[in-house]
Amino acid sequence: MAPCLIESLATTEPLAEVFSDISILEAMLDFEVALARAEAGVGIVPKSAADRIRAAARASEFDIPKLSRGMFRAGTPGIPLVKALRERVRARDPKAAGWVHWGATSQDVADTALVLLLKRARPILVGDLERLEKALRALSERHQTTLMLGRTLMQAAPPVTFGLKAAGWLGALGRGRKRLDSAFEEALVLQFGGASGTLASLAKKGTAVARALAQELGLRCPEAPWHTHRDRLANLVCCCGVATGSLGKMARDISLLMQSEVGEVAEPGGQGRGGSSTMPHKRNPIACALALASAHRIPGLVASFLSAMVAEHERGVGGWQSEWPTVASIVQSTGSAASSLAEVAEGLSVDCARMRKNISNTNGLIFAERVMMLLAGELGRDVAQKLLEGTIQKSIRQNQDLGAMLAQLPEVNSRLTRSVLRQLEIPEQYLGSAEAFRRALVKSTSSNKGKR
Amino acid sequence: MAPCLIESLATTEPLAEVFSDISILEAMLDFEVALARAEAGVGIVPKSAADRIRAAARASEFDIPKLSRGMFRAGTPGIPLVKALRERVRARDPKAAGWVHWGATSQDVADTALVLLLKRARPILVGDLERLEKALRALSERHQTTLMLGRTLMQAAPPVTFGLKAAGWLGALGRGRKRLDSAFEEALVLQFGGASGTLASLAKKGTAVARALAQELGLRCPEAPWHTHRDRLANLVCCCGVATGSLGKMARDISLLMQSEVGEVAEPGGQGRGGSSTMPHKRNPIACALALASAHRIPGLVASFLSAMVAEHERGVGGWQSEWPTVASIVQSTGSAASSLAEVAEGLSVDCARMRKNISNTNGLIFAERVMMLLAGELGRDVAQKLLEGTIQKSIRQNQDLGAMLAQLPEVNSRLTRSVLRQLEIPEQYLGSAEAFRRALVKSTSSNKGKR
Amino acid sequence: MAPCLIESLATTEPLAEVFSDISILEAMLDFEVALARAEAGVGIVPKSAADRIRAAARASEFDIPKLSRGMFRAGTPGIPLVKALRERVRARDPKAAGWVHWGATSQDVADTALVLLLKRARPILVGDLERLEKALRALSERHQTTLMLGRTLMQAAPPVTFGLKAAGWLGALGRGRKRLDSAFEEALVLQFGGASGTLASLAKKGTAVARALAQELGLRCPEAPWHTHRDRLANLVCCCGVATGSLGKMARDISLLMQSEVGEVAEPGGQGRGGSSTMPHKRNPIACALALASAHRIPGLVASFLSAMVAEHERGVGGWQSEWPTVASIVQSTGSAASSLAEVAEGLSVDCARMRKNISNTNGLIFAERVMMLLAGELGRDVAQKLLEGTIQKSIRQNQDLGAMLAQLPEVNSRLTRSVLRQLEIPEQYLGSAEAFRRALVKSTSSNKGKR
Amino acid sequence: MAPCLIESLATTEPLAEVFSDISILEAMLDFEVALARAEAGVGIVPKSAADRIRAAARASEFDIPKLSRGMFRAGTPGIPLVKALRERVRARDPKAAGWVHWGATSQDVADTALVLLLKRARPILVGDLERLEKALRALSERHQTTLMLGRTLMQAAPPVTFGLKAAGWLGALGRGRKRLDSAFEEALVLQFGGASGTLASLAKKGTAVARALAQELGLRCPEAPWHTHRDRLANLVCCCGVATGSLGKMARDISLLMQSEVGEVAEPGGQGRGGSSTMPHKRNPIACALALASAHRIPGLVASFLSAMVAEHERGVGGWQSEWPTVASIVQSTGSAASSLAEVAEGLSVDCARMRKNISNTNGLIFAERVMMLLAGELGRDVAQKLLEGTIQKSIRQNQDLGAMLAQLPEVNSRLTRSVLRQLEIPEQYLGSAEAFRRALVKSTSSNKGKR
Repeated sequence: MAPCLIESLATTEPLAEVFSDISILEAMLDFEVALARAEAGVGIVPKSAADRIRAAARASEFDIPKLSRGMFRAGTPGIPLVKALRERVRARDPKAAGWVHWGATSQDVADTALVLLLKRARPILVGDLERLEKALRALSERHQTTLMLGRTLMQAAPPVTFGLKAAGWLGALGRGRKRLDSAFEEALVLQFGGASGTLASLAKKGTAVARALAQELGLRCPEAPWHTHRDRLANLVCCCGVATGSLGKMARDISLLMQSEVGEVAEPGGQGRGGSSTMPHKRNPIACALALASAHRIPGLVASFLSAMVAEHERGVGGWQSEWPTVASIVQSTGSAASSLAEVAEGLSVDCARMRKNISNTNGLIFAERVMMLLAGELGRDVAQKLLEGTIQKSIRQNQDLGAMLAQLPEVNSRLTRSVLRQLEIPEQYLGSAEAFRRALVKSTSSNKGKR
Repeated sequence: MAPCLIESLATTEPLAEVFSDISILEAMLDFEVALARAEAGVGIVPKSAADRIRAAARASEFDIPKLSRGMFRAGTPGIPLVKALRERVRARDPKAAGWVHWGATSQDVADTALVLLLKRARPILVGDLERLEKALRALSERHQTTLMLGRTLMQAAPPVTFGLKAAGWLGALGRGRKRLDSAFEEALVLQFGGASGTLASLAKKGTAVARALAQELGLRCPEAPWHTHRDRLANLVCCCGVATGSLGKMARDISLLMQSEVGEVAEPGGQGRGGSSTMPHKRNPIACALALASAHRIPGLVASFLSAMVAEHERGVGGWQSEWPTVASIVQSTGSAASSLAEVAEGLSVDCARMRKNISNTNGLIFAERVMMLLAGELGRDVAQKLLEGTIQKSIRQNQDLGAMLAQLPEVNSRLTRSVLRQLEIPEQYLGSAEAFRRALVKSTSSNKGKR
Repeated sequence: MAPCLIESLATTEPLAEVFSDISILEAMLDFEVALARAEAGVGIVPKSAADRIRAAARASEFDIPKLSRGMFRAGTPGIPLVKALRERVRARDPKAAGWVHWGATSQDVADTALVLLLKRARPILVGDLERLEKALRALSERHQTTLMLGRTLMQAAPPVTFGLKAAGWLGALGRGRKRLDSAFEEALVLQFGGASGTLASLAKKGTAVARALAQELGLRCPEAPWHTHRDRLANLVCCCGVATGSLGKMARDISLLMQSEVGEVAEPGGQGRGGSSTMPHKRNPIACALALASAHRIPGLVASFLSAMVAEHERGVGGWQSEWPTVASIVQSTGSAASSLAEVAEGLSVDCARMRKNISNTNGLIFAERVMMLLAGELGRDVAQKLLEGTIQKSIRQNQDLGAMLAQLPEVNSRLTRSVLRQLEIPEQYLGSAEAFRRALVKSTSSNKGKR
Repeated sequence: MAPCLIESLATTEPLAEVFSDISILEAMLDFEVALARAEAGVGIVPKSAADRIRAAARASEFDIPKLSRGMFRAGTPGIPLVKALRERVRARDPKAAGWVHWGATSQDVADTALVLLLKRARPILVGDLERLEKALRALSERHQTTLMLGRTLMQAAPPVTFGLKAAGWLGALGRGRKRLDSAFEEALVLQFGGASGTLASLAKKGTAVARALAQELGLRCPEAPWHTHRDRLANLVCCCGVATGSLGKMARDISLLMQSEVGEVAEPGGQGRGGSSTMPHKRNPIACALALASAHRIPGLVASFLSAMVAEHERGVGGWQSEWPTVASIVQSTGSAASSLAEVAEGLSVDCARMRKNISNTNGLIFAERVMMLLAGELGRDVAQKLLEGTIQKSIRQNQDLGAMLAQLPEVNSRLTRSVLRQLEIPEQYLGSAEAFRRALVKSTSSNKGKR
């Protein structure tokens, strides 16, 4: 199901489908059918009524635009849905109609439907993140010795490996995926409380019905209804926010590395990606743009959700009523970013030669710290620093290699041989713990797969 | 056009229509058609090609799901739209196809389409706000002497009039509507810059085409393209945010006044509003809930927009690509709140007797400040304060009238007559400048109607 | 240490102290001292130099305003701190000065200092939440049979117990505290990476120094530096956001229950709380106002943090530089809310009689659902509903008891005895699973104390 | 006054001073003194009492930490301030003490103090923005013919001029400054309403006192008190948000242009700016980092403010109590960004040669659109496009000039002469309306200076 045009850059198709009209309607009907079955199971609702309700609950036969209008009027999705279902049941069996939605309140069906949608979204989201992790792990292993500039404040800095860079993304995303998966696990709970959240109309059978209903729907049964305690959902959307922050960081890095002047990596081009209507030669960072778009959109959406947590008493005025579009946007935006970057990671072009060239273009300046430390040992820190700063300025002005210029200074070449100075600028020799860090990051994410 | 279910509580129908697939598609096609006409007008594009383009630009004949998928792949709405249009033109006239989108870039059509949607949204939004203002003005006039409790920190306080309360809402909303209308005025500008925002491919004819194109579309022509300068749109969404904050304040007040224990006003019930699936007697603050839902959702959405303003160079990576759903949600949420509260204001039940009863239920405690001031003149502030505090505690414990209790105290009745004390508790006599404020507020909003 | 006036409503004193100038300075110096010691331990820095550095690192002797100005100029807290420390060391031992900050980068000291501050904040925050939980547990147990109105959309609804209400707060806050505590556990990690995050200048000794440094500081040593991977901190601030959402919900409830017209609970008044400058008799919901203020402020601050996660390469431009005030505000606001509500929960006045009176004031209307279910069994749902709605309207108009009015109807009293009808309005008999839910909630939070 | 360390990267000194303890205290005292004078003027308060109050209102003699603690306890800054002032007056003249804060409520002094601080912030903020505009205007004029790459999605695109780029920043900031200045104008209004916002205790003299008080303080007198109508402040913080978005865009551009691989501009280095603790040669984008930090922080803060607008009745619970730190952070962050970028614009190094070199490094690919248009006229669009795409791929692979390669193709050189092809790659000839846009932008901001 293709997304609405207004959201075409903000969701993948599978997630557009999860939050589509038919999917929402089915989730609400699933609740009502399962409720009747659960209540039939504990002897409240006649078995035949439950069957009638099930038979009437065919999503394809409902008038969705009418439902939509009714929801706005009622201020809740539950009332018009129940009304429509009851009418359909009544048309077949007037007695059975009375058992529709028995003991439940309108927020029960709306909230549980949302949870059922999230249950469907979980494997999509977590799956895309795992696909991305797998691709990053492969990239990191493949490029464990691929040298590239470190960049701090977007200025050239001592070298890193592309393997380490990929492992950094991987580490953050692995942590993010685990948090997100746990948050799903916690949030996938039934909502069922009736009018005031006590299941009063079910007398002593409330908890039995709740357990049976949860089981029917494949959800956990919480300690109590949570109509005005939205912390589990809040935690879930926050985990989306944190994961998308990490996705945004990866996308920013790749889009920077794709700049014409840097040219170290490129997104895969396939299937409509990366073109330009006016500049046919361009290889644009399209997937990165989509991931960054998500990273722009989500923080505010998380704030919207958090601000709506302040709900009144047993059912609030305006808080939960605000949630559906917020949750859908967050989940879809997270998925759009994850899926886009999975595609990127799987097909990324890496130009190792350009990476090395960009290192050598710095004329050794990125090793200034290293030179400094060595010179400091010979000349004392203050003398060394002064000498080095002067030479660096000269190196920049004359576009010449720092080591070569230093080697011409008497203060230096009286103490350090040319070959020592040359060694200072071999990037492989100035990687410190890069490989140890890389391995530890890769290892930290390789276990503890999400369950769904 | 009924909204999607996921947004059924978040938009009105007219605004759902503005941001619907067909509306978006038409707006984009309007740009392309007008562009060809404008370019034909200045002699760039053959008149016949412009005609062909117009003929091919029938929204109903486009494959919208395919466009949607293409937009996600391309990372922009413009590319697949232009491609589809060009194919349709080519099928009729291959030469004309080459003139489609001449000189424009994909963001030109996407941005201008968004502006055209906003142009359509403007009279809806501003109109609903004006309807609300009108109703509030009437409420304020009608209730200029209707006494009710002031409430500070949700505690009973000296009286106000309901006319003043309504005028307070009116004042804020009038200011908000004016700001919003000005922001629309500023934001409704053409986007047209070509690849790098210089209209290079139109050589010296760029500005002439721009002017003609703006005129075709009924938009103002800005000083320059604004692909990465989103301040006008930002200001517009901020003004939506501010107006919705004021709408939320009004909705909060009304929902508080509708509490069973307060019972001073009630939303009109009509047409599916206010019912409860489990409690048929309830008159729920449904419209207020919708307005408050908007007030919860919008601040975060405004943040999403503002954070996306930081755009790179001539066209950004991820900023503007994030905007469409954000802008649509903000405009629709604002409209949902404005329209809901217009309906409320037009049909509000006001229970003046209950208002007066809630005043008298306070046993005169809300006049303590007044008493204090009078006693302070007689006894000195410190003595008076001590005496008063003691009597207040007693009045609360014994649920008796403060004035009556004071009248029994020798320190008091030796100085103040019973009738003076009784007068202290006449709410009409303790309204200060309420009416002056009310009038000034009403007057401040009665001029300067929005133009559209 | 009293907070700045601008933040006087936004933090507790202990948390103001955590983020005070002297505390920040000490945390930064702790890093530098521990670094020198750790490097001395693995044989990089002379033991005597490490001692000199320790001796020079007396926070009280630094010029804090000068540091502050230097930080703004340098765009990082690290550079001026290191410069000032080095100067102080140099004054005693020029050689030792060269070893200050050896191998580290300025963000290492800034980030680790932030983590050390968070380590100090943890027991304060978690402790206040536990204090609150304890008080809520006691309230819930004490009031397990205290009946009160349920309220949905702020309208009277079937009864609940105050014990259940308190348990609902407790459940959400218990979950929130556990998530927060885990997030602290995850976030309290060393930052140490040197210029490009490879510890290149320490050659092969990087990881050994990192481990020793982490141990010196009582922090965990992460897999790798995280200069541009801020997900652990993001998760922590999100958990603050979620917990504060739940605190806001509790505060909203209490402030609503404290309304003059409701009067069911009251905040404890003690020590400057709750007064009014103009209305001496008022018992204002001051602590609730502070908690709600936090709940208003935090969602946006969480968004600020999340949006800053998109950091460039090895060290970002503008992301982490934005974090300090955001993190401090979030932690302090959370603490202000938690501490305020702990005080409230410990001293809350509960007016059980008023709660019961507010139930009886509804004239039995809140049992309409119950009556409906019973009548539906006798008369069929549709007939029953019509009958009931009519009677309810009459009951409201005439301000009379619903059950009594129903008992006068022939359709009803032919089928149901007066005593059955009377029983319908006994709130104790319409609590459903309230007590089961209460117990499950209390139980769910009684284990798994936070460790610190 | 140097900022607190926690905010050292988030404010300038002058704005730290505006929101400092002493400044806040003075603003509150200014209100109380002016109130007494205004009330003396209309004959309510004895002239001598007003004099005593003025004499007692010396900020330097107040115990600020005690005030801060009292504010947290009282949940409002007003109560402890008034108490302390009254005590000081009483010590001199017990009768005069009773006239302190006469007729006002605690929020009156808190809100008016905030407005007075904003009045002091206005010329600082607007002044820095004007300084920035002036520098940008000069840059734009100086570089009206300085050619540089356009960059879309961070890929090389047809050329622009640096003059146009600077004018784009200027245009957005000019609009932003005007909006901000108007928002200040609107927001600088007195708050004065007494307990319920009716000035009841002043009987009929309320509005006269209000007018006199506003005049004393140099503020406008609004139609009515606005304790729970915060739209004017909301609009002001939104305008800060929009302006900072534009500042962030400029900072992003400059930091991208400063990348080692791009090297087209550099921030001025002066006075502690731009160094690195580990890499002494670096010229870091420090001011840009500070501006971007503000741009990260502010959107969320704006959301915090907007969400707090939903205030209850005559004085709210938790909304306005949340505002002070939010407003201060927004104003300070805006000022930090504006001041940092003013410094940048005034001292920016522009490397015109490097700009041109970066153009020529693209081998003419950025003129592909131009070539396409020409070829399309000769060969038809489809043939031309195919031919061009092939040649572009070859040009990239062989790192050779596109025009030169095209000139070797028979299809091309049979139709276009070498010199025509060479002309295609002259950037000066492909600037379209760049200069027209530049001039229009410069002109649009050169009038309408902010008044203060």
